[in-house]
Amino acid sequence: MDLSELTITVLYIIGISAEGMTGALAAGKHKMDLFGVMFIALVTAIGGGSIRDVLLGHYPLTWVKHPEYILLVCFFALAATRIPSIVTRLEALFLTLDAIGLVVFSILGAQIAMKLNYGFIIAIVAAAITGVFGGILRDIFCMRIPLVFQKEIYAGIAIITGALYYLLTMWLQIHTLLCTLVTLFIGVILRLLAIKYRWALPVFSYNEKEINH
Amino acid sequence: MDLSELTITVLYIIGISAEGMTGALAAGKHKMDLFGVMFIALVTAIGGGSIRDVLLGHYPLTWVKHPEYILLVCFFALAATRIPSIVTRLEALFLTLDAIGLVVFSILGAQIAMKLNYGFIIAIVAAAITGVFGGILRDIFCMRIPLVFQKEIYAGIAIITGALYYLLTMWLQIHTLLCTLVTLFIGVILRLLAIKYRWALPVFSYNEKEINH
Amino acid sequence: MDLSELTITVLYIIGISAEGMTGALAAGKHKMDLFGVMFIALVTAIGGGSIRDVLLGHYPLTWVKHPEYILLVCFFALAATRIPSIVTRLEALFLTLDAIGLVVFSILGAQIAMKLNYGFIIAIVAAAITGVFGGILRDIFCMRIPLVFQKEIYAGIAIITGALYYLLTMWLQIHTLLCTLVTLFIGVILRLLAIKYRWALPVFSYNEKEINH
Repeated sequence: MDLSELTITVLYIIGISAEGMTGALAAGKHKMDLFGVMFIALVTAIGGGSIRDVLLGHYPLTWVKHPEYILLVCFFALAATRIPSIVTRLEALFLTLDAIGLVVFSILGAQIAMKLNYGFIIAIVAAAITGVFGGILRDIFCMRIPLVFQKEIYAGIAIITGALYYLLTMWLQIHTLLCTLVTLFIGVILRLLAIKYRWALPVFSYNEKEINH
Repeated sequence: MDLSELTITVLYIIGISAEGMTGALAAGKHKMDLFGVMFIALVTAIGGGSIRDVLLGHYPLTWVKHPEYILLVCFFALAATRIPSIVTRLEALFLTLDAIGLVVFSILGAQIAMKLNYGFIIAIVAAAITGVFGGILRDIFCMRIPLVFQKEIYAGIAIITGALYYLLTMWLQIHTLLCTLVTLFIGVILRLLAIKYRWALPVFSYNEKEINH
Repeated sequence: MDLSELTITVLYIIGISAEGMTGALAAGKHKMDLFGVMFIALVTAIGGGSIRDVLLGHYPLTWVKHPEYILLVCFFALAATRIPSIVTRLEALFLTLDAIGLVVFSILGAQIAMKLNYGFIIAIVAAAITGVFGGILRDIFCMRIPLVFQKEIYAGIAIITGALYYLLTMWLQIHTLLCTLVTLFIGVILRLLAIKYRWALPVFSYNEKEINH
């Protein structure tokens, strides 16, 4: 494992741990039992990567190869149920960890698409799926419209991250570690700015008759 | 690409474009942002085929092989957000395009099952999944009971289409193009009749105690 | 097919039939048409195994190899719509059949993970997914928070079953049939005790601010 892989692995582990904790809080809002808490935490943390791998036919899935990640996410999820108010009070920390997770997941998605020799569009789609689908599944299993469809720019960061990583690697042929760090830095900064200044995509609101089938 | 494939590809492209636009309107009903609009449009247009391919282990998925379809669906989805009332006013057109999409998707599902050497039942299941699962996913991500479980015959058309295509091809050994056109014609007519005369499957309504697990 | 496989196949068929019938009742609560009833029944009965196989890349899926299972589940689902009150009156019978289904599904999940040379954790995860994911999907498609996240121990039984089967097979090297029967017996008894004495996991209830993303 070279330095680039090591960096991304460490950040990935931080990312899934943080996602697992925030997933646990979402489960707590719906009064779930400890199995529900662990299920929602796992889906939030590793669901996006699983959907990506299944859609791209990229086997074995990360958690199948590294079952220790499952234990890690469950551990942090259960920890979050003991200290929920501390997690909430450290909101700024968790939003930063989540931003790191989002960008690292997106970079990993783009890397896997590129490893499978797919082009620009699929790299971006893989980045977006890895970055946001965990949160979408969390919300579906908690029976609410996914936040990522309505709130400040989140999926956009995943898309920009994927595109940036692809372009830096393919066109500029930058060293992988440098490429990872530059993308990571820009992605996280953009995400934090999006939260701070509530950057949002235009909303499409339509109340008239819908055509169904 | 022979004439049969060309016909089905052109109709497929029309189908996913129309599904993308109606998916966008569904997203607009839930005040989603432009990412949500594109997500729901993509899920509606290419979700059914993706589920089919994942369940049958048929890789790579269509949109992975043809990323231009992703751009196409997103383009039409965004276009629909600019002219939603025009889309609604052209309801008869869109219901016809949707009927064509439904039947073409179903034929494609049956074709892929047959290419993989599966029999009659799996051909029908593949047709039904391809035809209706996009709409089911659209409704799940919009948090409502899928319409296809409650409205006039829709899945039934996919099942009849799949069965008809299988039987024409396997038993009658009709030329593929003729077989496609005959199935397409009968399927679309049946669907339009189902809408006009509100043909529906019996509804099972049960309000007593349910057994769970 | 040896005696061990025969036993598990017979119990599997009983399990999916019973799950199909209870799935049909859930669909009836939401006034679905007969397609909706069959869809929910199929998802409940064979959805868990499908998710497991897709996540582990274990192709072809059981129902693709044995399409007769699809017909069987649909038959029992439609039968349930004719005699719903009888099904409800036989609640004790159906809860027992469901308990058998849960434990057999879990054993099958662990067996497949072990056949693919995965270790203890993946065997347990495969057991849990096979045992509970059908019910989770049923609830998602019916638009309600999955019961398995909130009710008496259900997923726990799947996890215990998977662990027990793995340990008996790997460590004690017991004959497969004996191993299956012992696990089955203990699993079903535990499940029935869990229902009778309302054994439940602690619930995590949290109403303060949640951190999203």
